[in-house]
Amino acid sequence: MLYSEMSKEQLLGEKEQLLKKYDEYKALNLNLNMSRGKPSKEQLDISNELFHLVDADNAVTQDGTECRNYGGLVGIPEMKKIFADLFGCPVENVIIGENSSLHMMFDIIAQAVSRGLDGEKPWLVQGKVKFLCPCPGYDRHFAITEYFGIENIPVPMTENGPDMDMVEELVKDPLVKGIWCVPKYSNPDGYSYSDETIIRLASLQPAANDFRIMYDNAYAVHHLYEDRQDDVLCLFQECIKRGTEKMILYFMSTSKITHPGSGVSALCASDHNIDLMKQRMQYQTIGPDKVNQLRHARFLKDSENIKKIMKKHAEIMRPKFQAVIDEYENELKPYGVGTITYPNGGYFISFYAPEGCAKRTVELCKQVGLVTTPAGSAYPYGKDPKDSHIRIAPSFPPLDELKQAVKIFSVSAKIATIEKLLQK
Amino acid sequence: MLYSEMSKEQLLGEKEQLLKKYDEYKALNLNLNMSRGKPSKEQLDISNELFHLVDADNAVTQDGTECRNYGGLVGIPEMKKIFADLFGCPVENVIIGENSSLHMMFDIIAQAVSRGLDGEKPWLVQGKVKFLCPCPGYDRHFAITEYFGIENIPVPMTENGPDMDMVEELVKDPLVKGIWCVPKYSNPDGYSYSDETIIRLASLQPAANDFRIMYDNAYAVHHLYEDRQDDVLCLFQECIKRGTEKMILYFMSTSKITHPGSGVSALCASDHNIDLMKQRMQYQTIGPDKVNQLRHARFLKDSENIKKIMKKHAEIMRPKFQAVIDEYENELKPYGVGTITYPNGGYFISFYAPEGCAKRTVELCKQVGLVTTPAGSAYPYGKDPKDSHIRIAPSFPPLDELKQAVKIFSVSAKIATIEKLLQK
Repeated sequence: MLYSEMSKEQLLGEKEQLLKKYDEYKALNLNLNMSRGKPSKEQLDISNELFHLVDADNAVTQDGTECRNYGGLVGIPEMKKIFADLFGCPVENVIIGENSSLHMMFDIIAQAVSRGLDGEKPWLVQGKVKFLCPCPGYDRHFAITEYFGIENIPVPMTENGPDMDMVEELVKDPLVKGIWCVPKYSNPDGYSYSDETIIRLASLQPAANDFRIMYDNAYAVHHLYEDRQDDVLCLFQECIKRGTEKMILYFMSTSKITHPGSGVSALCASDHNIDLMKQRMQYQTIGPDKVNQLRHARFLKDSENIKKIMKKHAEIMRPKFQAVIDEYENELKPYGVGTITYPNGGYFISFYAPEGCAKRTVELCKQVGLVTTPAGSAYPYGKDPKDSHIRIAPSFPPLDELKQAVKIFSVSAKIATIEKLLQK
Repeated sequence: MLYSEMSKEQLLGEKEQLLKKYDEYKALNLNLNMSRGKPSKEQLDISNELFHLVDADNAVTQDGTECRNYGGLVGIPEMKKIFADLFGCPVENVIIGENSSLHMMFDIIAQAVSRGLDGEKPWLVQGKVKFLCPCPGYDRHFAITEYFGIENIPVPMTENGPDMDMVEELVKDPLVKGIWCVPKYSNPDGYSYSDETIIRLASLQPAANDFRIMYDNAYAVHHLYEDRQDDVLCLFQECIKRGTEKMILYFMSTSKITHPGSGVSALCASDHNIDLMKQRMQYQTIGPDKVNQLRHARFLKDSENIKKIMKKHAEIMRPKFQAVIDEYENELKPYGVGTITYPNGGYFISFYAPEGCAKRTVELCKQVGLVTTPAGSAYPYGKDPKDSHIRIAPSFPPLDELKQAVKIFSVSAKIATIEKLLQK
């Protein structure tokens, strides 16, 4: 029976039962965490071969570069080739970064703010520049533009990507300088952009000459199922067809393929943008760690082999996603307590609590030792207008801990929902 | 006999002899390089143990952090401890970076330009801000401030460090925002700052609140001799004594201790500055590669062990420096062709050609296949007012190649000098 259809007495009775369970969890003094998109130890072990693939006598690339020494601003050829294949672009359009694609994104925004792009003035002196933030989205994207004093404009996410009507309207403002995108298995909904969304993005005619699509394909190869895999049109190629490739800065990394702490990131961009980046990088750095790139190139080999590696990840991830789905379908859905998304890949599931119940749910979880992502954090400035969204990150805890965590989560969500209904 | 004392006929005779030699070198079609402060292959081999010190079953720090996964913004404890001992500061005042201390420097200047320091306005909107550049100095330092449109002000280097009378005068200008320093075995002269220089630096009272000493101790442990080692007062400690520690940002790296392409960099700064850096870094990055830090911590161990490692480097470097000195003393000094510096450590020797002869010397070298650092590159905007200075980097070529290179260099310097004298 749906909570919304229960009488006050029924709700009070249900609440009493739930609080009993809740207190039992409290007594266990738990320390559980479902907050971060962090691979589990089992997943790290998939890539342990990395430690044995480069030694002093073979630390040389196919073009003869000694990786231990200085040199190589934009990456070694074998690493660029692997990413070029993933990006679907020529090798010349790839720049390899350090272990963090976020770092590459931050540095590009910093460059635009302090030096300007395309001969335009630095964003810092152009007035109150703005950035479009499809949301719920990735808090660390929004935090970068917020850090630089750029105004983050929320744009609703749909199952097909950002609300493109709104995006097309907003980019008529020359102070709108870009948009954050996670096109595949989006963080946190797990949605993938439709062909129409990609084509409309590639066809954008922003008023700002120095407009950029910050296109973070963080979950490009991170499928959960063999038989249900999302396929997203290549925005870079669609832009090239239309001559709009100056707009796109396309990122990936091995963070959730190999080892997140010591991976390799990459950028794909037009010749123009590659030149822009190099203009900064030649002053900024001696170039990223080539030894680690060589390790990765030898381990990853090619796109086919990456698929095999990702299958191993999926086998570990699938039961975890299933645990969240099962708990939702058995314990929340029958009572009308919120909705969830059903991603085919990525690292997250969105839970949409009944309006006004997200913060309270998170608070209740916290009080019994379960840390979840703070409510609202997937929205610019942490403001979820409906106080509804909670990002569930099931990857890190071992399966038995996760099963306990989702039970605590569902009890908390139910209590929060009943409390809300009783206030009416 | 000094060239300056020779008659025109004598000079013409000498030139003819030199051109014969010069043409012999030309016929050899050589490809030699004395341009970069790059360790040789032999030196890289000193640190090959690095490849075997971390594996999947021991990729955990002393505080239990799994290095393969996310986490750790400012470095692992064991790496911070080693650098803290080298810096002479508490562990809390250390931040570990990626493989490039230059990257840390660039990012801090970018932060000052785009966001401002100490609550002051961003440098970008403060007007034409300026930076002091002791020169000859490190071209890549000057290039960072130049990239951001900051005006580089040359300040003469002396055997004891920058001309402090001039520095004290210039910092009275509130638009002067900082100074670049290489305090020990300076690039390119190999000079070390005297106690007086350090104390005067620590006692500076710049008009700008957001003034910073960019203090790059790149050659802190890079002695050449057992019995002649420069000792430089710790500027960080001297600043703390005077309550001026907000001024100093103190950098080091393992670039020329282990492997330059895959080393570890570090920053030492006051609590105030550490907070400032963290405010940026929390948005900028997931944190530097912890696995590589762990490799380095296990290889370097402590300051005593680093001394042993640096002794091995010195054994390889010493004969190379001696080859430069011998060539100068045998082939240039007797003719009054320029002067050189005699460093006790570091990576470079400065050659000061007779005025107006540096560019021509470099050109002559290039025409017979010897690449040297471009003349003037050690000065802001590449402008050596005397066209005299050439940086000699003897580390990279094998000793036999280096010996050939310095012969070409001395012949070229002699020809350039005679050409100049004949013009008079």
